[in-house]
Amino acid sequence: MTSSGVARLDEAIAVVRPVDLTWRDRAAARLDRLTKPPRSLGRLESIAARLCAIQETVAPRATPRRIVLFAADHGVADEGVSAYPSAVTAQMVGNFLRGGAAINVLARASEADVCVVDVGVASDIDSSGHAAMFISRPVRLGTRNMTNEPAMSQDELASALAVGLDIAAVAARDSVAVLACGEMGIGNTTAASAMTAAFLSVGADEVTGPGTGIDGERLARKVQVVERALAVNQPGDDPLAILRTVGGLEIAAIAGAYVGAAAHRLAIVGDGFIATAAALVAASVCPPFLDYWFAGHRSSEPGHRLQLRFLRQQPLLELEMHLGEGTGAALAMHLLGAAAAVMNEMATFDSAGVVGGQQAPARVAVES
Amino acid sequence: MTSSGVARLDEAIAVVRPVDLTWRDRAAARLDRLTKPPRSLGRLESIAARLCAIQETVAPRATPRRIVLFAADHGVADEGVSAYPSAVTAQMVGNFLRGGAAINVLARASEADVCVVDVGVASDIDSSGHAAMFISRPVRLGTRNMTNEPAMSQDELASALAVGLDIAAVAARDSVAVLACGEMGIGNTTAASAMTAAFLSVGADEVTGPGTGIDGERLARKVQVVERALAVNQPGDDPLAILRTVGGLEIAAIAGAYVGAAAHRLAIVGDGFIATAAALVAASVCPPFLDYWFAGHRSSEPGHRLQLRFLRQQPLLELEMHLGEGTGAALAMHLLGAAAAVMNEMATFDSAGVVGGQQAPARVAVES
Repeated sequence: MTSSGVARLDEAIAVVRPVDLTWRDRAAARLDRLTKPPRSLGRLESIAARLCAIQETVAPRATPRRIVLFAADHGVADEGVSAYPSAVTAQMVGNFLRGGAAINVLARASEADVCVVDVGVASDIDSSGHAAMFISRPVRLGTRNMTNEPAMSQDELASALAVGLDIAAVAARDSVAVLACGEMGIGNTTAASAMTAAFLSVGADEVTGPGTGIDGERLARKVQVVERALAVNQPGDDPLAILRTVGGLEIAAIAGAYVGAAAHRLAIVGDGFIATAAALVAASVCPPFLDYWFAGHRSSEPGHRLQLRFLRQQPLLELEMHLGEGTGAALAMHLLGAAAAVMNEMATFDSAGVVGGQQAPARVAVES
Repeated sequence: MTSSGVARLDEAIAVVRPVDLTWRDRAAARLDRLTKPPRSLGRLESIAARLCAIQETVAPRATPRRIVLFAADHGVADEGVSAYPSAVTAQMVGNFLRGGAAINVLARASEADVCVVDVGVASDIDSSGHAAMFISRPVRLGTRNMTNEPAMSQDELASALAVGLDIAAVAARDSVAVLACGEMGIGNTTAASAMTAAFLSVGADEVTGPGTGIDGERLARKVQVVERALAVNQPGDDPLAILRTVGGLEIAAIAGAYVGAAAHRLAIVGDGFIATAAALVAASVCPPFLDYWFAGHRSSEPGHRLQLRFLRQQPLLELEMHLGEGTGAALAMHLLGAAAAVMNEMATFDSAGVVGGQQAPARVAVES
């Protein structure tokens, strides 16, 4: 579990291949025979065609669905960058396990199960609840304070990546069709801001926002903390160096899970600002990853818009949410389920005895 | 069922009152005690608070859900304004009843039942399918051709409104919590375009789009048809005159169902361009109606954007759909369900033993 995590990441990267577009085209041809005007289901048809390309079928599955919630603490929380103390990370993990958090509710509404992974929570966790699966894989009790030193050592980064790769393998073994990653970690919008500034080569002030709800002087201090972390660590433009020095254990685990899920050909639903920081890593080290990743929603955290633009992804939902935990992904999963159902359950013009199917003009291209 | 429909509409209008904002505020206060940063669920919180205000509770229901699909034909289809012949209206009703249409699939995905109402289909319907409820209330075999004369007589308008009012009463009797109206009727984007041009006082070319998929010369002809219908009928700015002369039987039924549903204090989810033409009528004759109506999605039909702007409503979803049938509303219903679940199922900071709940700043206002 030392540097093997990075080696295992490289192995997974080597397995990921772009989706086969002939399956997307076959799906599009079938969509045009269904009893509706061609392309009239808009992006739902694009989702359906992409699911088909990922799974190499014209009868795609969108169940079982799983949301994996990676939790870890951040040394940088000592700098007063959050509206909440670090202890809340562990308290919220207990809440996830008892089923009282937003993600429990929204996952249930979207028929997804929830799996909570402790990849580095600093405080004691009350794991007596059983509303979600719980996996304990702590790498260390939170990252180091990145304003003083790198957030993680090489070995710690490797271990966190390995946790994510393992979780993706478990999801594949459990026949999960649609996977999302959420996160919990007081201080993690600060890490995500530093990562985003490094990946996009923009100023800290452009990608640092209110997080759990700070503004004014505290927000100005948070910008300075991000600037200091970048100045101290000088991560350059190497994706794994950025992740290691100014990232987080849960963000590294998500990056590992993302690449691993793509290697296992799972459809992946993105979440908010922090999970998308992990997507920046995954897309940088493994560009075909984006064929498997659906931008679930756009958070109101200002840096999220820039991340999605950088990745050239249009979000499925924009509901001014900024909670994390996988809540945006959970809502978007319903759209993937609906898209798969359209593909599998609608009648064709021929089977329904409805005239007009042959009038569909040739489909030039399907947005994907 | 003659002019009594208009009298009954007036009775329903008199019953509709604005929602009590104290319930919205009570809901907002409760939302701030739930284990999440205040307002971090964005528009989901606004939906939850509005459901609370509609139902006068802090424990709102979002089930049972029903989509009522009103079907009727349009005399104006003789002008060649659609990609499909009028016979498709009846054929699609058969498809709805057998469960093969997009709305059957999306309603099932969002746990809504489907009720199909024949309010004026011109061709014979094969009603042998039982995947949806079927109610036969034909007013006449399609509207008259509005380029020659008014689409409906006064009596026909009244009857169509009465059908919608009856359907709303049935929904209330069945304890439906969330109601949506969809439509099927070849030619009905032409009617909706004429209505929208009249309500918004804009040119036909601004609100006339591809509908089921026409472009070029046929689209230009459709614009001319809309212009001719408006020139022949001169509907002025009286909402019911617009609806009667250039509307449709299914659009009138939706307008009646909308007002009736608001009178019964049901939450209503809007759909696309045609259903929103009915919302223009309902909002004009009964402004508090909008307290009960959620703009479900924004269609890619160009006039829909103008309608929503006119009504000052922001859609919940924007997925480039333009199918009608209630498909956009069906997807949006999932969000109402999720919002109600948040309100009912999340833990509070106190109950979950999570610190920080008291840090929530005072909520100034909740967008509704």
